[in-house]
Amino acid sequence: MGEQELGITESKEHSPGDWYAEVVQKAGLADYAPMGGFIVTRPRGYALWEGVQDHLDSWFEETGVENAYFPMMIPESFLEREKDIVEGFDPEVAWVTHGGHDELEEPLAVRPTSESIIAPFMSQWIRSHRDLPMRLNQWCSVVRWEATETKPFFRTKEFLWQEGHTAHRDEDGAWTETVRRLDQYERLYEDVLAVPVLRGRKPEHDKFPGAHVTTTVEALMPDGKSVQGATSHNLGTSFAEAFDITYADEDEETRTAHTTSWGLSWRALGALIMTHSDDQGLVLPPTIAPKQVVIVPIWQEDTKEDVLQYASGIAADLEEAGVRVHLDDRDGRNPGFKFNEWELNGVPLRIEVGPNEVADEETTFVHRPDGSDHVVDRESLVDETNAHLDEIYEKLYEDAAENLAENVRTAAETSELLGTIGKHGGYVVTPWCGDEACETVIKDEIAAEIVMVPFAEDDRAERAAGRAADRDLSGVEPEGDHCAVCGDEADRVAYFAKSY
Amino acid sequence: MGEQELGITESKEHSPGDWYAEVVQKAGLADYAPMGGFIVTRPRGYALWEGVQDHLDSWFEETGVENAYFPMMIPESFLEREKDIVEGFDPEVAWVTHGGHDELEEPLAVRPTSESIIAPFMSQWIRSHRDLPMRLNQWCSVVRWEATETKPFFRTKEFLWQEGHTAHRDEDGAWTETVRRLDQYERLYEDVLAVPVLRGRKPEHDKFPGAHVTTTVEALMPDGKSVQGATSHNLGTSFAEAFDITYADEDEETRTAHTTSWGLSWRALGALIMTHSDDQGLVLPPTIAPKQVVIVPIWQEDTKEDVLQYASGIAADLEEAGVRVHLDDRDGRNPGFKFNEWELNGVPLRIEVGPNEVADEETTFVHRPDGSDHVVDRESLVDETNAHLDEIYEKLYEDAAENLAENVRTAAETSELLGTIGKHGGYVVTPWCGDEACETVIKDEIAAEIVMVPFAEDDRAERAAGRAADRDLSGVEPEGDHCAVCGDEADRVAYFAKSY
Repeated sequence: MGEQELGITESKEHSPGDWYAEVVQKAGLADYAPMGGFIVTRPRGYALWEGVQDHLDSWFEETGVENAYFPMMIPESFLEREKDIVEGFDPEVAWVTHGGHDELEEPLAVRPTSESIIAPFMSQWIRSHRDLPMRLNQWCSVVRWEATETKPFFRTKEFLWQEGHTAHRDEDGAWTETVRRLDQYERLYEDVLAVPVLRGRKPEHDKFPGAHVTTTVEALMPDGKSVQGATSHNLGTSFAEAFDITYADEDEETRTAHTTSWGLSWRALGALIMTHSDDQGLVLPPTIAPKQVVIVPIWQEDTKEDVLQYASGIAADLEEAGVRVHLDDRDGRNPGFKFNEWELNGVPLRIEVGPNEVADEETTFVHRPDGSDHVVDRESLVDETNAHLDEIYEKLYEDAAENLAENVRTAAETSELLGTIGKHGGYVVTPWCGDEACETVIKDEIAAEIVMVPFAEDDRAERAAGRAADRDLSGVEPEGDHCAVCGDEADRVAYFAKSY
Repeated sequence: MGEQELGITESKEHSPGDWYAEVVQKAGLADYAPMGGFIVTRPRGYALWEGVQDHLDSWFEETGVENAYFPMMIPESFLEREKDIVEGFDPEVAWVTHGGHDELEEPLAVRPTSESIIAPFMSQWIRSHRDLPMRLNQWCSVVRWEATETKPFFRTKEFLWQEGHTAHRDEDGAWTETVRRLDQYERLYEDVLAVPVLRGRKPEHDKFPGAHVTTTVEALMPDGKSVQGATSHNLGTSFAEAFDITYADEDEETRTAHTTSWGLSWRALGALIMTHSDDQGLVLPPTIAPKQVVIVPIWQEDTKEDVLQYASGIAADLEEAGVRVHLDDRDGRNPGFKFNEWELNGVPLRIEVGPNEVADEETTFVHRPDGSDHVVDRESLVDETNAHLDEIYEKLYEDAAENLAENVRTAAETSELLGTIGKHGGYVVTPWCGDEACETVIKDEIAAEIVMVPFAEDDRAERAAGRAADRDLSGVEPEGDHCAVCGDEADRVAYFAKSY
């Protein structure tokens, strides 16, 4: 392939869908599989997922979660034991019907989610209040047979995720757990992926099947659509009742446990890629980038030895300091080719060294997100590298936060709601009566929906976490107290948006 | 449950099958799923698997392997492209035939192994000799619908494993790779799991479908049966030809790549558990034990404060030194109960501290494998802990190595072969003509088979690794040079054994 074909040819602004697909493929993150709905995650993409795993696993471990592994297949009769689960997932289950040349007596579902196979084991393992809380997590793939167009990491029939499943003595325990996991998801987005998120609950009619309450973090993409970043469900006693998860309390009374489940999928990678990347290719924050720094030495034949020696010294110092650094000393590729390639692949910071830098005991730093360059003394290189990596993170976060702040608007009636989303995308906050019918009106017109209802100040979820409800943008208040659609009295607000 | 039911009731010597199942369940490693052939891996079992992953991943990374993830489903037409694969796996494939309420146009196999879905992508990604070698690995679960009795970690329809897939310029590259991975598997068994292994190749008729050569490491279990510990295959050009994996060499000539694949499954955990554990429960080497040391303080009311303070100091010192330590300061459980529980769970070293130890500035060390106790000065505690952990590892390894050494015997004719395996189990080494029919005679009589043919001194596999062929027990030489079964001339020896 020529150099031109290696680069991105589509425009993020003008054809975001094609641009996204091109970045994912040309940066070597993923490829489309021959079966619609499946992708192959290549090493550079999988390394990002391993980064997500490392962060979440350490936070999970600190907060009492243990990893386990449950079967990938679930008997049909187990799925049917919790009626909401079977209704919610039955239309999109992949069924294994044959083993070898024989038909199975009972079809097995390839897990779309694992409540129905984990709950019966919790029922066996939990006997006494001393067994609670029980907190399990698994990293695995799940399958949901949705007939939509494939979009790597956003919409695939098989996807990688983690699913946490916990059991508690009472409602307070379940609430605290639900919100703790939502906090950890928020932390992943805000402190690792440089993606600001809004938090709240899903409307009643859009809860996880069987859930008492579904909480969510939502991220706004540059094209004005919202991504459900992760969800954490307080399942109340619905699964505990269906699968008989009970325990003996201190007085030997039998009580029903309260359970939760919570999951984050590789969609987080989709949000990461789409938020920061540009027409030169992938852009990654240094927190998650497999390589944070690439050193590109620039030499002529007569300066090669000096420049390479200087570059190796820099690489050694950075590696010693714990920076993930790569020295690109390939022969047969000119510096311009290397610049383009590392830009395409999203390395956050490039350090250029040539004969001038060697002579002056300096280096040139170039930031991937905006191409800004900076002369840095060799002497203070390690400290400066860390400072520049922090600065790059802040830049990426601030840009995304600015996009979000500019795209939360209010509306007091239907025409305004429709017009604002139609024109600008983004979120529109309106008073809402709580009736699904009012969402349907909007959905039918412009395919926007209620993606989130902010926690109220007296919300149990927020109180459990000990947080103020009105942090950041979740606190935007529309005027009026009548539903924007039907005009009935409204005791809450809703965030409408088009959604991935 | 009463205390008695918590402990192991079966005998390793007299009913090894029931004993194994009891250890796995009572030590909290795994449980049986309701669908035959599936198990649930509980946190203590999964932690062992994470330990295996950590070791192998670091060795893979050092030797140029990158992790990736390929679809769990493979179209039937892809499986059919390499004829040996489809013949080898077709009888045991689980088929997905329906997505939601619709029948699929083409059935999808739940991957039994992934050559058939990885090779077509290698074909796309490899263009030039500069793209080689390409080394990919994935950690995933695979499904093989075998209708045998479930034995956790040994025989399950779904199992966890890693599968590596590589492509090389030529036969030498593929051989070097094949043997490098076999070396790493051997290292895992010998240096981490304390399980000595024999290495060699599988007979021609027992190779992996499509393989040029299948190499194996084999471990002898205490009941006299052999476990195939891991396999590494030189696939030659069979997959490269079926899936068109070619590259342009320096002269722009199109050449066919040589590929390899290699895998280690959670059967390694089965071998670990079965080799070392005893009638008190699980025994683990310190290298893989999630907790290496448990401190059990022994107090009366009036000494509680002093003893706990002393114990906490010890725990802090060990943690600081990087030892994985747990302080069991539970109220309401007496020391005897705690001893039994930690023995059942396989913690390698117990440190007991009571008022006497506090007064004398000492501690008592108890080794899990043999119950031996040792008084250790508080002052030299950290160094002594590391020394005792090493000693425990050596004990476990030496016991297993002794069992292996005592159970490799020779035989020169059929009756001797049958009699020796029938009486002692273990390995019987005989001259072998190479004909499958001679193995069949033995198989039909006593269900023993050829598990391994040692590498010959002039073996290409051994030369690639630069190792001597006659290391350890693989070098046992039977007398004579005629096949023990048919009497024809024999140019090799074979290791017969009953096998898991």
